[in-house]
Amino acid sequence: GKELIQAKHTYFHSERLEAFCDAVLAIVATILITPLKLSSEQMQKYTIEDNLYNKPEFIIRFILFISGFFFIVSAWDRHMKIFYIYPVADNFILWLNIIFLLACSVIPLCFTLLHLIGAISSVLVILFVPTLLMALAQSCQILYSNWSRHSLPSHIHSELFGRTIIGFRVASYLFAPLLLLMAPVILYIDSPYRVFISSIFVGNALLFGDKYVNVCESFYSNYRKFRYRDYTYQLKIRKFRAAVTKSRVEFFTDGIFAIVATIIILDTTTEITNKVDLNDDYLSLAEDMNVNAYAILYESRFTILSYVNSFLIVCLFWFVNHSIFHYIHHMTRLMNVLNTFAQLFVCIIPFCANIMVGYANKVGDDSLTVVITLYCTNLFIIGMMQIILWMLVRFGDR
Amino acid sequence: GKELIQAKHTYFHSERLEAFCDAVLAIVATILITPLKLSSEQMQKYTIEDNLYNKPEFIIRFILFISGFFFIVSAWDRHMKIFYIYPVADNFILWLNIIFLLACSVIPLCFTLLHLIGAISSVLVILFVPTLLMALAQSCQILYSNWSRHSLPSHIHSELFGRTIIGFRVASYLFAPLLLLMAPVILYIDSPYRVFISSIFVGNALLFGDKYVNVCESFYSNYRKFRYRDYTYQLKIRKFRAAVTKSRVEFFTDGIFAIVATIIILDTTTEITNKVDLNDDYLSLAEDMNVNAYAILYESRFTILSYVNSFLIVCLFWFVNHSIFHYIHHMTRLMNVLNTFAQLFVCIIPFCANIMVGYANKVGDDSLTVVITLYCTNLFIIGMMQIILWMLVRFGDR
Repeated sequence: GKELIQAKHTYFHSERLEAFCDAVLAIVATILITPLKLSSEQMQKYTIEDNLYNKPEFIIRFILFISGFFFIVSAWDRHMKIFYIYPVADNFILWLNIIFLLACSVIPLCFTLLHLIGAISSVLVILFVPTLLMALAQSCQILYSNWSRHSLPSHIHSELFGRTIIGFRVASYLFAPLLLLMAPVILYIDSPYRVFISSIFVGNALLFGDKYVNVCESFYSNYRKFRYRDYTYQLKIRKFRAAVTKSRVEFFTDGIFAIVATIIILDTTTEITNKVDLNDDYLSLAEDMNVNAYAILYESRFTILSYVNSFLIVCLFWFVNHSIFHYIHHMTRLMNVLNTFAQLFVCIIPFCANIMVGYANKVGDDSLTVVITLYCTNLFIIGMMQIILWMLVRFGDR
Repeated sequence: GKELIQAKHTYFHSERLEAFCDAVLAIVATILITPLKLSSEQMQKYTIEDNLYNKPEFIIRFILFISGFFFIVSAWDRHMKIFYIYPVADNFILWLNIIFLLACSVIPLCFTLLHLIGAISSVLVILFVPTLLMALAQSCQILYSNWSRHSLPSHIHSELFGRTIIGFRVASYLFAPLLLLMAPVILYIDSPYRVFISSIFVGNALLFGDKYVNVCESFYSNYRKFRYRDYTYQLKIRKFRAAVTKSRVEFFTDGIFAIVATIIILDTTTEITNKVDLNDDYLSLAEDMNVNAYAILYESRFTILSYVNSFLIVCLFWFVNHSIFHYIHHMTRLMNVLNTFAQLFVCIIPFCANIMVGYANKVGDDSLTVVITLYCTNLFIIGMMQIILWMLVRFGDR
């Protein structure tokens, strides 16, 4: 259909737009770990137990990271589904996507505020704004795509969906920001449980945002099935829910692996810059440093070794993932979910590398043992996820 | 050919490996701008002219950035050519690529050292190591791919190349590290011009590394043409040199756009973290900060506005690029070069955003005017490159 698309200048196939969105979303999901990192002062002062276990704040912040990750992933999942059903874009859809991506990329900033000053009303209102923007952009896109399908060339795959299906979609997109808006409202109520109730609302909004509406829709479809013997509705919603595009899952996964593998070198670069760039005039150091370029590298040898180590580990896991995906003929929803969980733990690798470097040259406590145990547990979990995924592909495909 | 590839487990199509390499290389090319950034103290102390124009160091560092960028791009270009000729990979090639990527991703670290302490012998030796590793990995890959082509299924496109062609390829890969090795050697010679000569060697190694060998090969092919009337050699080397895969150029371009668009939010996150995280205990601030979450955002309003601004500009340029590539049927070498130059200036956008934020709230000098002029000039150059690319696609294709 290339000729027709090129004849009507306003429409184009959306592969490259999808790849661009996948890349940006993968970067956003990976950046979310940044505020969890410990500064070198924190690591020098306290043992790893003091920094992680004994402070309830860290657990809360870790849960925050997980919910943020799944929030971004579910936005990506919706994005994939919309483009699966309507694989043609025009300029308006493109701009909607840019607004969507802009709002998405502000999420790490909001999460940094959440990490630093906690879930207080002002922060929650700030978090609400990009969430609403994302939901509005996606709602507009699905409404517009469904409305403009008549103007598309007929041979391009585009389903006809009724008001109810599209209505449920829009409702599910808008439900997360609505839930999130409840949280700051509740904080104004004069009750001793307000913080607790409010944080439940935040967690539900981020983790299960659209799931509630989907459950309602299932009830509705079952009602139609038993009341009017209307089986088509259930088939239609299954089209929306089970839609998984293998190439897009691969793109998103590749993006996360590539960024996790290289983001550690960015930290290393910054660390070395800070170490050398203590006074202002750049090159006056040159004479003193002549013998010391190796010394600088030697001083940050743990950082560099840890970088090489993490890079090779990430590449190894990428290779395993690549080999598994090589055998997938038909990607199912369950495989996608398992793969996403594996990605979550891949995103934690930069954090593990950060604490390993921080405690590598600290003597006096057994923090390093704990850190290495944590690192290895993380790698073990990723490995287990890959094995389960592999078994699913190998034996579940029959 | 999917069945045959799957029957012989050891070989696989390399699309995903190529996409992963493109992503990592795009990140590496984008990170190179990091050491150029000015710290907020430097911007508070000096005017923009003092920071940029009046210091010869900045010009040198800027030239360094450009040569680093082109060094990474030429490594990517060679990578694209090898996979264009041999589009099938196996485990050995995959591991060679991982070593190649690891060496590539260490380049920004070496460049940071170059930026901070200048081109002294120890830094040059440190830069030589990853450069050599990259060249060795690519040499091994081309030798192995050419050698193992007999074991491939016959229907998979794989050219038969003689020793001379492959020899020239390997020589051109290894020439850049050899030139680079000359630079520290020259520094030990007792001559007043040693620094000058040495930096010429560095610049040549980074910018024109493999071009010299290619010129030699052209002479050789002309010699064969006139001496033995052997025209096939010229055709064969053209296959290697003119090979441009449109999809890979798109991937690399998308990668650079996606990272440039989002890397600024990473800086913003770090900045806000530093602003709030002044004392150690995380959540003790919560009470004081309750009214101040908006205040924090207001304080860094320039950073956030500049982020939104840069994001929209980058997306706009991505859109223009996307529209131009939509009309490209056959990608030529010249288009690729023009596109690469446009990418160079896209990579400078984070630097422009950095200085714009730094001088946004500084009163007393007219630095902001200079900064905005610089930013706009940069955008103008990107725009002009896109227009030239567009004219080339529109009128050169006939």
